[in-house]
Amino acid sequence: MKALVFHGPGRRSWEDVPDPALKSPDDAVVRVDAVTICGTDLHILKGDVATVDVGRVLGHEAVGTVEEVGSGVRNVAVGDRVLISCITACGRCRYCREARYGQCLGGGGWILGHRIDGTQSERVLVPFADTSTYRLPDQVSDEAALMLADILPTSYEVGVLSGQVAPGDTVTIVGAGPIGLAAVMTVRLFSPAHIVVIDPATARREAAGRLGADVLLDPADDVAGQIGALTDGLGADVAIEAVGIPETFERCVELVRPGGRVANVGVHGAPATLHLETAWIRDLTITTGLVDTYSTATLLRMLAAGQLDVSGLVTHRFGLDEMQDAYDVFSRPGDTGALKVALFGSDRSWENPS
Amino acid sequence: MKALVFHGPGRRSWEDVPDPALKSPDDAVVRVDAVTICGTDLHILKGDVATVDVGRVLGHEAVGTVEEVGSGVRNVAVGDRVLISCITACGRCRYCREARYGQCLGGGGWILGHRIDGTQSERVLVPFADTSTYRLPDQVSDEAALMLADILPTSYEVGVLSGQVAPGDTVTIVGAGPIGLAAVMTVRLFSPAHIVVIDPATARREAAGRLGADVLLDPADDVAGQIGALTDGLGADVAIEAVGIPETFERCVELVRPGGRVANVGVHGAPATLHLETAWIRDLTITTGLVDTYSTATLLRMLAAGQLDVSGLVTHRFGLDEMQDAYDVFSRPGDTGALKVALFGSDRSWENPS
Amino acid sequence: MKALVFHGPGRRSWEDVPDPALKSPDDAVVRVDAVTICGTDLHILKGDVATVDVGRVLGHEAVGTVEEVGSGVRNVAVGDRVLISCITACGRCRYCREARYGQCLGGGGWILGHRIDGTQSERVLVPFADTSTYRLPDQVSDEAALMLADILPTSYEVGVLSGQVAPGDTVTIVGAGPIGLAAVMTVRLFSPAHIVVIDPATARREAAGRLGADVLLDPADDVAGQIGALTDGLGADVAIEAVGIPETFERCVELVRPGGRVANVGVHGAPATLHLETAWIRDLTITTGLVDTYSTATLLRMLAAGQLDVSGLVTHRFGLDEMQDAYDVFSRPGDTGALKVALFGSDRSWENPS
Amino acid sequence: MKALVFHGPGRRSWEDVPDPALKSPDDAVVRVDAVTICGTDLHILKGDVATVDVGRVLGHEAVGTVEEVGSGVRNVAVGDRVLISCITACGRCRYCREARYGQCLGGGGWILGHRIDGTQSERVLVPFADTSTYRLPDQVSDEAALMLADILPTSYEVGVLSGQVAPGDTVTIVGAGPIGLAAVMTVRLFSPAHIVVIDPATARREAAGRLGADVLLDPADDVAGQIGALTDGLGADVAIEAVGIPETFERCVELVRPGGRVANVGVHGAPATLHLETAWIRDLTITTGLVDTYSTATLLRMLAAGQLDVSGLVTHRFGLDEMQDAYDVFSRPGDTGALKVALFGSDRSWENPS
Repeated sequence: MKALVFHGPGRRSWEDVPDPALKSPDDAVVRVDAVTICGTDLHILKGDVATVDVGRVLGHEAVGTVEEVGSGVRNVAVGDRVLISCITACGRCRYCREARYGQCLGGGGWILGHRIDGTQSERVLVPFADTSTYRLPDQVSDEAALMLADILPTSYEVGVLSGQVAPGDTVTIVGAGPIGLAAVMTVRLFSPAHIVVIDPATARREAAGRLGADVLLDPADDVAGQIGALTDGLGADVAIEAVGIPETFERCVELVRPGGRVANVGVHGAPATLHLETAWIRDLTITTGLVDTYSTATLLRMLAAGQLDVSGLVTHRFGLDEMQDAYDVFSRPGDTGALKVALFGSDRSWENPS
Repeated sequence: MKALVFHGPGRRSWEDVPDPALKSPDDAVVRVDAVTICGTDLHILKGDVATVDVGRVLGHEAVGTVEEVGSGVRNVAVGDRVLISCITACGRCRYCREARYGQCLGGGGWILGHRIDGTQSERVLVPFADTSTYRLPDQVSDEAALMLADILPTSYEVGVLSGQVAPGDTVTIVGAGPIGLAAVMTVRLFSPAHIVVIDPATARREAAGRLGADVLLDPADDVAGQIGALTDGLGADVAIEAVGIPETFERCVELVRPGGRVANVGVHGAPATLHLETAWIRDLTITTGLVDTYSTATLLRMLAAGQLDVSGLVTHRFGLDEMQDAYDVFSRPGDTGALKVALFGSDRSWENPS
Repeated sequence: MKALVFHGPGRRSWEDVPDPALKSPDDAVVRVDAVTICGTDLHILKGDVATVDVGRVLGHEAVGTVEEVGSGVRNVAVGDRVLISCITACGRCRYCREARYGQCLGGGGWILGHRIDGTQSERVLVPFADTSTYRLPDQVSDEAALMLADILPTSYEVGVLSGQVAPGDTVTIVGAGPIGLAAVMTVRLFSPAHIVVIDPATARREAAGRLGADVLLDPADDVAGQIGALTDGLGADVAIEAVGIPETFERCVELVRPGGRVANVGVHGAPATLHLETAWIRDLTITTGLVDTYSTATLLRMLAAGQLDVSGLVTHRFGLDEMQDAYDVFSRPGDTGALKVALFGSDRSWENPS
Repeated sequence: MKALVFHGPGRRSWEDVPDPALKSPDDAVVRVDAVTICGTDLHILKGDVATVDVGRVLGHEAVGTVEEVGSGVRNVAVGDRVLISCITACGRCRYCREARYGQCLGGGGWILGHRIDGTQSERVLVPFADTSTYRLPDQVSDEAALMLADILPTSYEVGVLSGQVAPGDTVTIVGAGPIGLAAVMTVRLFSPAHIVVIDPATARREAAGRLGADVLLDPADDVAGQIGALTDGLGADVAIEAVGIPETFERCVELVRPGGRVANVGVHGAPATLHLETAWIRDLTITTGLVDTYSTATLLRMLAAGQLDVSGLVTHRFGLDEMQDAYDVFSRPGDTGALKVALFGSDRSWENPS
């Protein structure tokens, strides 16, 4: 079969690899029907993620059809259409038992396209299939479900829920890339009074506006002043960091009110400065985290009930064998306007139900 | 009357000042029966707290007897023995209505010995007396109550409750000064599996051990290794920072397990480095805060019921007019072994009912 | 001035009474600009509330203009347009300090139109004015604000927040009177997957549908079957009781899934049967409560930001001096279709700014 | 092998049954080293639990040694000493993923000695072994661990944690049988101000006193008066029902203060009356539940660390082949003073390491 293989920094190819085969009673083999590319994949290709070996098939988000299951798999069966979560969960360790699957100690966590071969492929082996895949209801399309493989639960759990967004809050989201936009979508589930989005790219600010943000600012604007005007001068209730650089994190800390929450979602490569000389007295709560996907089933339920609309995130669509083109488009968002790209297997299209 | 007056960096005197008088219907005038000195007072005397004017009477912790009340005071009466909290609460603003009295927007917060004259005095004017003082039950001594003016609620609220200490946790407390020791006392209320205290001073480690810490370490020890040995290699569930310098804060972040909590209690004068390049994925919760004293009534109830023992914190006792001596002893803990000092009015002694 | 006076069961009159006067430094006198009638007022008129004395002016919901304040009042001033909350808070007692104002031990709680003269009057004395009134932003109309005096915070706090409604939940609301409809509005703030409303009156079910409920059932329908169909046979996540009779409470307990929450909002006059022989094993949480109005400021913020729309609740509008007519209409909802009625002072109208 | 077999109401025998054998990749076969009898077993023998078939081996609590594991078992191995939890968890279903294992939809829940053969036997088949057993640290004795199979997590989760016991609370426990006494032990983990235990049996009250309850009352005493005296007339913060009859549940509801919590732990066979005509306004939270055993690992950690002492619960010890005698003693607690009985396999004794 074909797969996207990492050959070291800057080098990827769509090439023939052996078909996956079951190794353990918990495994499933899934045919990939729809797949996407994550910013993390670009980091890997830059050589930033030392734990990814050369020869690895990338990708940790997909929707597919189960082709084979091990003898211990109970909840999914051959032929089931499933979401493959970016997080694999052993279901047995201390962290899995606390629904903190991202921290799995039993061989799971973020492993697909990282420590084992991933989903940018015609087929993928999914360990711990019962706790790492989700059967899809008919009314949910492949493309919509695909948004729940990573970015929706990431922004919802690590941003919105860790940030304890509540009705009436003023929420600031710093960064309007795919994760920031997914944060706009999921912050709205809690009916904030205001969603303030800060991003230097006009197109991304406009996308945030279409998804429901009501205040759109450039980082060069008087951000603190504008937020102060909405909040009796106090500051935002919650700030969600969705970029991953020190400046944006530090800005989040500045922008929240006493008693506010800063939820870091961005993937950072460098330390930030925490101004404890002013922050110690401000009753702040700062959270970090990898997605656990404990919310995936709930988000699916909302998608099926029509209470969550994830359209507007996918800007470009491809066939699975156009993987290299998709990477080209996704890696140049400034030029292409790409948010998320979606790739579909040959017998699928993005026009499927709903 | 006599009071301890700040005359600029390094200069204090115990001198005559005018008696306080009621200014508002919410005020009370309280005769000071017992008072203590806080590390913050030493910071003020070093000139570190720019908001303290020359001429200010210092002190924000006391036990006393109500001598006069304004027409709007309902809950305390002349002759009542009361605890004067380090935090004054208007009781009306948004923060007070959320029990976040430390962030009071209506003229309260930490004001005693800071923005208005404080408790190191024979008498003190207490604004918003109904929400800023606590009537004392007979069975609680002045000295025990005095520990509830600041350090017990501070360590309990900002350390233990913000850190979400739970039964069975391994809790690390960095720093065994008065606040760190009060943290040992109040962490124990939640029956942790282990309390690990880290301090370079042998005497302070020993004090922590007497109060119930079971692992006592010098910062130069293999701290991470020892905590790892107690926690299957994961790290502490909670780390409480009780020093106030970058190194100790950064150490706290390193010592907690994925999913762990860092509760900063220390008063910082410089920024710290937050290693987001490793922390972003570790599901951390970092909290800061000024005490709100929402727990003071509960702590008093426990003290009265004999469920909380605060003895062991006061190492030196003085008469109120020995204020200068008390400062001398308290400001040289390395030499004197001082933890908390207590000063008593002439008709009181530390041997009163307990 | 004129006021609606209770003269014993079945007897009310709109008559001259003395103007109110300040009694305490915390008091305010407020001119009533808009007022409404509550189901509780009808209970009082039936003689069901023994604690209401003959001669009492009824009413506990209003919007008005401050005419006079005591010397201790700090947050509202003469001329301010304010919401008068149904709950009065001393701001000093144990319960007020926990934001449980409905249980105030210091002379507050539900006292207006109950233990002291109320708001169905041209003027009203409001004790503890700082903690019992809310200054209104210009963009909020009298009529909209009036909905926040009681029914919105009641349904939100006692129904939605006590019931821990979360995004994706299936929520059942039993009863579509004013409180049940306000529950529909406030449940929506948390983006449930489904809102199921059960009421025998077609008009009320239709009103619920207009406000956002997606499943509208008659109690005679196969309610459990319909909810089961939405929830994989498990039952509702949350059931909100908004009627106040044993049958509807017992139905709520039946309709929730294992692990579900039953939030009782209804005012009950008789005991219910709790089927512990089946409920003991079902992980239920059942809550009761009087509104505390801790959410009033947040709801006002949402109203001002246009995030909460309370139109659709007021069905009939009157002049203040048409009080008796308003009672007639409100007390016969089956005939009149009345939900909430609003009465306005002579210099006000319901067309004021919104 | 030998096992205790249910032969219909009133009829049990210790008889030969076939040895268990692995059926699924998740299974383990465990040799029983220590086992106990639960009040529920007596209910089954009375014929109260219709879902137990004739021929069933009873028992759902044990400590044993793993003899065989299926191909999918990862966390326990042959030779491991393990605690067998009363709750079996599939680890895959919605409820298991929320750590609500007692409500498992995937074939688990309370099944041992109920829907499948149980632990009062020389060997037992444990389905879903990875998520239903706990490897025991050496320093924890069989007998101590046995207390964590059911009664400790039951009283802790369903009583203490559902009841939200907090430091400084006054907690009332109604019933001082094994569950009530385990509640005393686990309530203490949160340092309440007072633990009030109500039981008609002098011996049980005395046992409660030895374990740390400070107020011991007969139901005929002036219970409300005594609790009022401890709580400024307000009532208990939390009441834990540990009997299972309507009278005791109703008493719990009466004894809590406004804002209080009633945690039902008792197994009920009949409905209770819920006095909503008074309770609706009292801000009560009433919880029910089957144990989930999510706390078992934490309790084990505390046991290993010496922070939890479960001695004092086992009053009688037997050899495994004295099962019938053990039932005789356990079923007549009034005569025998039995709390928990423990039975040990032939190569074990209760003197093993602790």
